[in-house]
Amino acid sequence: MTKITHLTLDVLKPHQPDIVEFATRLAAHGTGSAVTIQLLEMDEQTESLEVRIDGDDIDYEGIKNTIGALGGSLHSVDCITVDVKSKS
Amino acid sequence: MTKITHLTLDVLKPHQPDIVEFATRLAAHGTGSAVTIQLLEMDEQTESLEVRIDGDDIDYEGIKNTIGALGGSLHSVDCITVDVKSKS
Amino acid sequence: MTKITHLTLDVLKPHQPDIVEFATRLAAHGTGSAVTIQLLEMDEQTESLEVRIDGDDIDYEGIKNTIGALGGSLHSVDCITVDVKSKS
Amino acid sequence: MTKITHLTLDVLKPHQPDIVEFATRLAAHGTGSAVTIQLLEMDEQTESLEVRIDGDDIDYEGIKNTIGALGGSLHSVDCITVDVKSKS
Amino acid sequence: MTKITHLTLDVLKPHQPDIVEFATRLAAHGTGSAVTIQLLEMDEQTESLEVRIDGDDIDYEGIKNTIGALGGSLHSVDCITVDVKSKS
Amino acid sequence: MTKITHLTLDVLKPHQPDIVEFATRLAAHGTGSAVTIQLLEMDEQTESLEVRIDGDDIDYEGIKNTIGALGGSLHSVDCITVDVKSKS
Amino acid sequence: MTKITHLTLDVLKPHQPDIVEFATRLAAHGTGSAVTIQLLEMDEQTESLEVRIDGDDIDYEGIKNTIGALGGSLHSVDCITVDVKSKS
Repeated sequence: MTKITHLTLDVLKPHQPDIVEFATRLAAHGTGSAVTIQLLEMDEQTESLEVRIDGDDIDYEGIKNTIGALGGSLHSVDCITVDVKSKS
Repeated sequence: MTKITHLTLDVLKPHQPDIVEFATRLAAHGTGSAVTIQLLEMDEQTESLEVRIDGDDIDYEGIKNTIGALGGSLHSVDCITVDVKSKS
Repeated sequence: MTKITHLTLDVLKPHQPDIVEFATRLAAHGTGSAVTIQLLEMDEQTESLEVRIDGDDIDYEGIKNTIGALGGSLHSVDCITVDVKSKS
Repeated sequence: MTKITHLTLDVLKPHQPDIVEFATRLAAHGTGSAVTIQLLEMDEQTESLEVRIDGDDIDYEGIKNTIGALGGSLHSVDCITVDVKSKS
Repeated sequence: MTKITHLTLDVLKPHQPDIVEFATRLAAHGTGSAVTIQLLEMDEQTESLEVRIDGDDIDYEGIKNTIGALGGSLHSVDCITVDVKSKS
Repeated sequence: MTKITHLTLDVLKPHQPDIVEFATRLAAHGTGSAVTIQLLEMDEQTESLEVRIDGDDIDYEGIKNTIGALGGSLHSVDCITVDVKSKS
Repeated sequence: MTKITHLTLDVLKPHQPDIVEFATRLAAHGTGSAVTIQLLEMDEQTESLEVRIDGDDIDYEGIKNTIGALGGSLHSVDCITVDVKSKS
């Protein structure tokens, strides 16, 4: 079984919803995970974010959909870690 | 359940109340948390602060209100970590 | 017995399959290993990746074949660690 | 209960009392704490110091008064950490 | 008794045998050791490698001979650690 | 009780006694301490040293006198740590 | 009792004996110690080395004599640590 245990995402979002709500909504997708968002740049309309997600089994599709539903766009997956557990 | 466990805030405040009282007032919002304030820049009227808050469950709204009540303004949330605990 | 326990690979790939699927497919080659892919550069047609693989006994030939099967090309092996276990 | 557990102070002092006595006098204000003073710059009349104080419950007013009593002046509090312990 | 426990070697080699076989062959000289090879530079004919070897008792002569047998040349020993164990 | 547990000293000394004897003589002043001397600059007549002393209770006056007795001069105390132990 | 527990030496030596033999010969002077030699620069006739020695009680005179006997010259002692053990 392969599981995603880390993602670093490059995300652009409008000012609303704010970064605190954005992080809370993304975090709601996992169990036993943590979402850390760093504000890289802010201009009049948008914010550039580095979103780092650590977890036991990250739901990438769910994360991607939530970013879109919150008005953000996922520019790139800058880092991903996939762990392999033995099948037993 | 999602809980905010880290905040880095970019804050501007007047010289009074001083940084020691400012930190003590912000710290009073949490239990089991720590507030670290670093003075980034000081000019005639104001001080730029980096406020770092670590805790088990940070009350972001309360922090934001207290900054305002002390005459400061919250420029941006530069970093946030949200942890997810299993619901059981 | 010698076993490969780390590889850092310089890989070029087209945009599809995306980096998440790419990592998952490479990870499926090992047991007890982890694959971390960092996006170094992206242009119109291709993505430059640094692929880091850690494991107890990495199947280099399998990794190389899978990269090719996914449309990628392995430019170089930038780092390799080989461990020696006693034969008993 | 909030308690100050770290202070970084920017202090200017005359050459006398020397840095060793200065540190010893500041340290006498706390229990279970440590005072580290780094000499940043020395000119003909004065010395610029970075004073770092770690402790369980730092007496900021006492520190401030002692600096003044020793002929020094506290330019700014460059870093402060306030810990919150549960009230029980 | 003195034993070599670390070597960093500056090695030049032709493209064949590849870096994976090269590392595996060097590793076969020791027991309980690890060989890490980093590719520093690659041109049309040759590859510059930094070869790091850690072990309990590294066979330097054997390593040197194997590098030669594989068509490589040892430019310099850039770092060496020799441990001394008491004779009892 | 306050005790000096660290000193970083900026010292100038003639070439004789050499740095090894100099360190050994300074170390003889304490118990359970360590003296580390780094040579910063050497010219025809003198050597600039950074002298770092760690100990449970460093005898600053003794250190200062020994530096003078060995022909050196103490330019400045660049760092000092004073620990406070509870009086019980 | 004072004992030398670390030395960093700046040494110049001819190409022969090579760095591996040089390190082995220096290491033979101590018990429970380690000698690490880094090659800093190599020209036609000589090699500049940084020799780091860690041990419980380093025999500085013996080290110095061996460097000379191997055709090297000790330019400077760049770092020395002397530990003080209580006499009991």
